[in-house]
Amino acid sequence: MEPVALPLGRPREERADAARNRAHLIDVARRMVAELGADKVTMDGLAERAGLGKGTVFRRFRTRAGIFLALLDEEEKHFQQRLLSGPPPLGPGAPAVERLVAFGRARLEFLLEHMVLARASLDPSQPVPLDESPSLFHVRMLLGEACPDVAATGPLALQLVAALEGPVLLYLQSADGPDLATAVDDLIASWQVLAERVCGVS
Amino acid sequence: MEPVALPLGRPREERADAARNRAHLIDVARRMVAELGADKVTMDGLAERAGLGKGTVFRRFRTRAGIFLALLDEEEKHFQQRLLSGPPPLGPGAPAVERLVAFGRARLEFLLEHMVLARASLDPSQPVPLDESPSLFHVRMLLGEACPDVAATGPLALQLVAALEGPVLLYLQSADGPDLATAVDDLIASWQVLAERVCGVS
Repeated sequence: MEPVALPLGRPREERADAARNRAHLIDVARRMVAELGADKVTMDGLAERAGLGKGTVFRRFRTRAGIFLALLDEEEKHFQQRLLSGPPPLGPGAPAVERLVAFGRARLEFLLEHMVLARASLDPSQPVPLDESPSLFHVRMLLGEACPDVAATGPLALQLVAALEGPVLLYLQSADGPDLATAVDDLIASWQVLAERVCGVS
Repeated sequence: MEPVALPLGRPREERADAARNRAHLIDVARRMVAELGADKVTMDGLAERAGLGKGTVFRRFRTRAGIFLALLDEEEKHFQQRLLSGPPPLGPGAPAVERLVAFGRARLEFLLEHMVLARASLDPSQPVPLDESPSLFHVRMLLGEACPDVAATGPLALQLVAALEGPVLLYLQSADGPDLATAVDDLIASWQVLAERVCGVS
């Protein structure tokens, strides 16, 4: 995140420079992923190709996985927009259980589309900070609306997010395109059963 | 796995050597994890400390994550034994839903105890082969017994395994011991709600 206010005495150009560097790095990283594949993109390689110092790249992304997280973040913004103001049942206006089912379908399709980035952005030594997960926020909100009796049960929303994202992130093989699409279709159907059962509507 | 039959013409000592190398590597890797922490253990470092060639270590574990998977595998064997022949409700003899709840508790406690290894053994570029997951096999079996109506629904068992293991593997912060134990207690309670809801018993 960019700072919202500049510390005293820091020249304005520095902030603009940082934003330009970020946009430039994201752009170069995206091209490197497309050309070389995510597994060939390194911090050093990115710094060299972007013509920036290694320190700049390190401060920006912290870890190699952070590069892919930043790329995915750009796509996440579009996805979040559909949840906030897109047409129902993904967007507002449908009953909460229907929105939960629609969210699962859309999220699985999103992960299928961005599978390489999503997996490359995982860093088991630096787990996903829960308070920064928009998926968790959304599922918790819908669960609270759809089934307040179970929604208060500790980390149930987190377990549902893991049920939704875990199979794609951790278990599915990525080798075969058509097989993968079928597997994701099966996950979408299965998610509907899971969400409806948890909310007691089936 | 060791081969069950030797190809013709390969001397018997080679197989015995391979088994010795494996036991030796596992032993050295375990000591390195204890002394240095998992994040400092590399393929090269392990080869050097074990006094074996890099090629031997590479053939044995394939990836750095494979080292930790092999260490975890030793612990998994004890865990599986409790499922197969331990006292109920984790072992045989209790109703399937109770066994599913008990499995979740035991699995979360197992993951908490072996969290460092479990996380280090994740390799997003080489997903867990599903046909080698004893957790999936066990959940699928219990689900088929407890609620045959939903058990046939595609990857529902996989989603439940992800709901169980994903929060520990992907999302929880590992920084704070007592907080982590509390978080796992909450996950155990929440897993019970999830399992019972899916099977329609609550």
